[in-house]
Amino acid sequence: MTNDALRIMFLGDIVGEPGRKAVIEQLPVLKAELGLDFIVVNGENAAGGRGITPRIAIDLLRAGAAVITTGDHVWDQQEIVEYLPTEPRVLRPINYPPDTPGKGSVVLETAKGKVAILQGQGRTFIQPPLDNPFTLLESEIDRLREEEGVKMVLVDFHAETTSEKIAMGYALEGKASVVVGTHTHVQTADERILSGGTGCLTDAGMCGPDHSVLGRAHESVVWRFKTGMPTRFPVAKGPVRLCGLIADLDPETGKCLKIERLNRLIGGGEQDAG
Amino acid sequence: MTNDALRIMFLGDIVGEPGRKAVIEQLPVLKAELGLDFIVVNGENAAGGRGITPRIAIDLLRAGAAVITTGDHVWDQQEIVEYLPTEPRVLRPINYPPDTPGKGSVVLETAKGKVAILQGQGRTFIQPPLDNPFTLLESEIDRLREEEGVKMVLVDFHAETTSEKIAMGYALEGKASVVVGTHTHVQTADERILSGGTGCLTDAGMCGPDHSVLGRAHESVVWRFKTGMPTRFPVAKGPVRLCGLIADLDPETGKCLKIERLNRLIGGGEQDAG
Amino acid sequence: MTNDALRIMFLGDIVGEPGRKAVIEQLPVLKAELGLDFIVVNGENAAGGRGITPRIAIDLLRAGAAVITTGDHVWDQQEIVEYLPTEPRVLRPINYPPDTPGKGSVVLETAKGKVAILQGQGRTFIQPPLDNPFTLLESEIDRLREEEGVKMVLVDFHAETTSEKIAMGYALEGKASVVVGTHTHVQTADERILSGGTGCLTDAGMCGPDHSVLGRAHESVVWRFKTGMPTRFPVAKGPVRLCGLIADLDPETGKCLKIERLNRLIGGGEQDAG
Amino acid sequence: MTNDALRIMFLGDIVGEPGRKAVIEQLPVLKAELGLDFIVVNGENAAGGRGITPRIAIDLLRAGAAVITTGDHVWDQQEIVEYLPTEPRVLRPINYPPDTPGKGSVVLETAKGKVAILQGQGRTFIQPPLDNPFTLLESEIDRLREEEGVKMVLVDFHAETTSEKIAMGYALEGKASVVVGTHTHVQTADERILSGGTGCLTDAGMCGPDHSVLGRAHESVVWRFKTGMPTRFPVAKGPVRLCGLIADLDPETGKCLKIERLNRLIGGGEQDAG
Ligand SMILES: [Fe+2]
Ligand SMILES: [Fe+2]
Ligand SMILES: [Fe+2]
Ligand SMILES: [Fe+2]
Ligand SMILES: [Fe+2]
Ligand SMILES: [Fe+2]
Ligand SMILES: [Fe+2]
Ligand SMILES: [Fe+2]
Repeated sequence: MTNDALRIMFLGDIVGEPGRKAVIEQLPVLKAELGLDFIVVNGENAAGGRGITPRIAIDLLRAGAAVITTGDHVWDQQEIVEYLPTEPRVLRPINYPPDTPGKGSVVLETAKGKVAILQGQGRTFIQPPLDNPFTLLESEIDRLREEEGVKMVLVDFHAETTSEKIAMGYALEGKASVVVGTHTHVQTADERILSGGTGCLTDAGMCGPDHSVLGRAHESVVWRFKTGMPTRFPVAKGPVRLCGLIADLDPETGKCLKIERLNRLIGGGEQDAG
Repeated sequence: MTNDALRIMFLGDIVGEPGRKAVIEQLPVLKAELGLDFIVVNGENAAGGRGITPRIAIDLLRAGAAVITTGDHVWDQQEIVEYLPTEPRVLRPINYPPDTPGKGSVVLETAKGKVAILQGQGRTFIQPPLDNPFTLLESEIDRLREEEGVKMVLVDFHAETTSEKIAMGYALEGKASVVVGTHTHVQTADERILSGGTGCLTDAGMCGPDHSVLGRAHESVVWRFKTGMPTRFPVAKGPVRLCGLIADLDPETGKCLKIERLNRLIGGGEQDAG
Repeated sequence: MTNDALRIMFLGDIVGEPGRKAVIEQLPVLKAELGLDFIVVNGENAAGGRGITPRIAIDLLRAGAAVITTGDHVWDQQEIVEYLPTEPRVLRPINYPPDTPGKGSVVLETAKGKVAILQGQGRTFIQPPLDNPFTLLESEIDRLREEEGVKMVLVDFHAETTSEKIAMGYALEGKASVVVGTHTHVQTADERILSGGTGCLTDAGMCGPDHSVLGRAHESVVWRFKTGMPTRFPVAKGPVRLCGLIADLDPETGKCLKIERLNRLIGGGEQDAG
Repeated sequence: MTNDALRIMFLGDIVGEPGRKAVIEQLPVLKAELGLDFIVVNGENAAGGRGITPRIAIDLLRAGAAVITTGDHVWDQQEIVEYLPTEPRVLRPINYPPDTPGKGSVVLETAKGKVAILQGQGRTFIQPPLDNPFTLLESEIDRLREEEGVKMVLVDFHAETTSEKIAMGYALEGKASVVVGTHTHVQTADERILSGGTGCLTDAGMCGPDHSVLGRAHESVVWRFKTGMPTRFPVAKGPVRLCGLIADLDPETGKCLKIERLNRLIGGGEQDAG
């Protein structure tokens, strides 16, 4: 690690019980092993694949997550609507209307300085339609920098298309320290640092059963595509892959000094989960 | 390389002049360096980002590509409509209606046995609506195995969503040697071999300007997302990233023995293209 | 009515208990009043707005419907999967894969000759992705004309966009007697007879609560659009509007001689349901 | 006409030269015949089916249109970008970002009082993604009522789905005098006045060649749906259907007193354009 840098880990969409068990078990291990200063996880599929409950959020925070982001599945569990206003460390996309429960940004103090985490949601091939995440994320970062003196900023941009996610990195170049995509549940191999000091990864990937389609049992998903008929998509079983990134941020400038993908198979002996 | 295995390289969507120049220049280099037996490239964006011309197809074939696949941009250049029926090595998605110009599969002889290349197109968040790629690809592979005795089979599945692309891998497990996705222009980091011997990679990524949004100048794409107003999306400049995969196939069984991502920056000194 | 013509009535998507009660009550009344020979209803929203149960299908058939069509909601009620193969008078879209339960066409004998009813589903802005309805409907009509000597043919094309529905009328001009759209729940005012003798109406409209959004309580739908947050969409209450069409068909030629919209408010004194 | 009421006519999407010629010719005729006080037309397809030029806008205004609305095709003709800021009577959807050229509302003085015309664009199955039209239209109407004392308000809501358009009527019930949908080019048969005094019509329909698919030659559209291959969609020929509505508004209260569909075939002898 760069000396005095703040090391942040971000983990992608946690899927179901297998995903959250593995994350809760591994967070302390990874924190110690990797010297992490700050952990953010996306929990939008933590409750059986659909949303997150207050109980699960509390468990993830206790296990070491400083902030939990969500996404288009944020409202899947009804209790979350009343919980969000009580827990600023659990975010929903910032581009909902102004009076929506919860927030899309949070600033936390750390020993190495303030860290801001923001979440936005895309508008291409993802529901519901929301307001412009490009202008809203940019103005919120500007506000946090000015009003709160924040330098280190991580943005989870929950979006379907690669174009929208990559464009967000460029749109926030020099303003965000890290722009990481979520939602597709598959990690991309394009980590890089833009010259403005913004580390980018198009999608973090998921934390869920590896031998699956996005964490769901592959048989049912294949059947759906073959027949066009509805079916249940149970969360899959077996070894869990933890996907995300680790980034070193310069507390003085907020610039990303280093970005690496994290991709670990937990509970299985093989990379090949076939 | 596994002894006697057939080594195949697949390169993702070639974007514009920068992409095709880099590919044409690098194909012989890579072939020699990596001991490639067979090369397939996706050329759907080779002509200024939109489609492919007969001239470009010929150049790519001459440079060493054995087969060229396409995708939703296949018809962007009008001359291709008359060219496809004359050149079986340039494929279009198999799930167009039966009397569509061109084919969605081809079988070529090699010193190590027959190799079949197929292409299908997804049906989620991609146009136009086509017939079922799951049933059509499966039955075509069955036919080629039975009628032509083909064992080694590579499928380029051109689709938007990770779910549809991963599901295709499972759907063709044990039937295809390799199922590789294209269309999102971003390489995924999830290469693996299913237990049935099918190597999978959700998206190969593109061969195009690295400092870009899907090969296009990032300024114009960001402007589009911020304003909602139309603009041109010129192909970007600068170093080109070649993305794809290399797989070793067992000629006896058709099984994938090894799969690796290929990801090289050409014409620039740095991974970071910012 | 044209002398000896077959008079057919088609009613659009029946929504919930209010819709099916009104339809069941009115079918005998309308049959007598209008001299109807044949009645077809779309029942895809008859069960609480989501799908149709065998029980409801039986009730509608008993009340006078000769055939029931469905649509994208066909599978919403699980019992229907086993019921469809037992009841050829309840159709699902023809462009599902060949081995899907149920059928997309049926031929019935009447005193004035055979009548064929077919259903297809569109592919623009409607799920799931299915095979080409244009080619499949055309070839099925050709088959029924040749093999069964059918002349009178009504097609319910369940689709979202006006372009796809109007195009279907032209595609089947001279082959179908009537092409009527369903799915948007709003009746269009464009009834007409193409010169080939095909009567067309872009959308039949629904049979459901008039003071509503597509049959659902307007407050909840408006809330959804304002907030982007999920909510329940209860079936609305109050007077029911029955929407559909009446067409006179020439039994000798199958041509449509006359087409009129049907649009009646049942159980309320006013056109204005505000 | 109700005594002293303001009679407003709205015409739906004008398509190509046939559409605008018919509109320009008929506006004075209709104005005299129907006693119109105020005319609004949607011109988003007036220029060869794609957008509108300044020249065409000027012609339509001279012919008697007081205001021209547009829609998702607003930017199709590049000159319009510079023209919009110079001509407040040509609107674009209000839910573009704040600094977009042009406006989404205009207030005009008439002998019977001020009339406000607004335009919003939907967010379901229509591009580009824009900000929330429900909240923005409502707050703009509130502002115009307060700041400008406007009572008579007509909203053109350019949207694809019936649900979004009908919901807008309810959302603006009691605030807008008329909420009329555009974009699908097919007139709906559901005109009504909500109890709050808001007249609604889900879609006005188009002003364009009747024997067509949305104003385009039907052969090419059908070919597209059958083959999935690209083609040109020339504007069709033959008689033009003028579609829209006429509403009487109470200048004192802004309430809609009467709403009727307008649907006239110009230049042909028959309703049946087959
Ligand atoms: Fe998501
Ligand atoms: Fe997710
Ligand atoms: Fe593509
Ligand atoms: Fe591409
Ligand atoms: Fe439907
Ligand atoms: Fe329906
Ligand atoms: Fe439009
Ligand atoms: Fe239009």
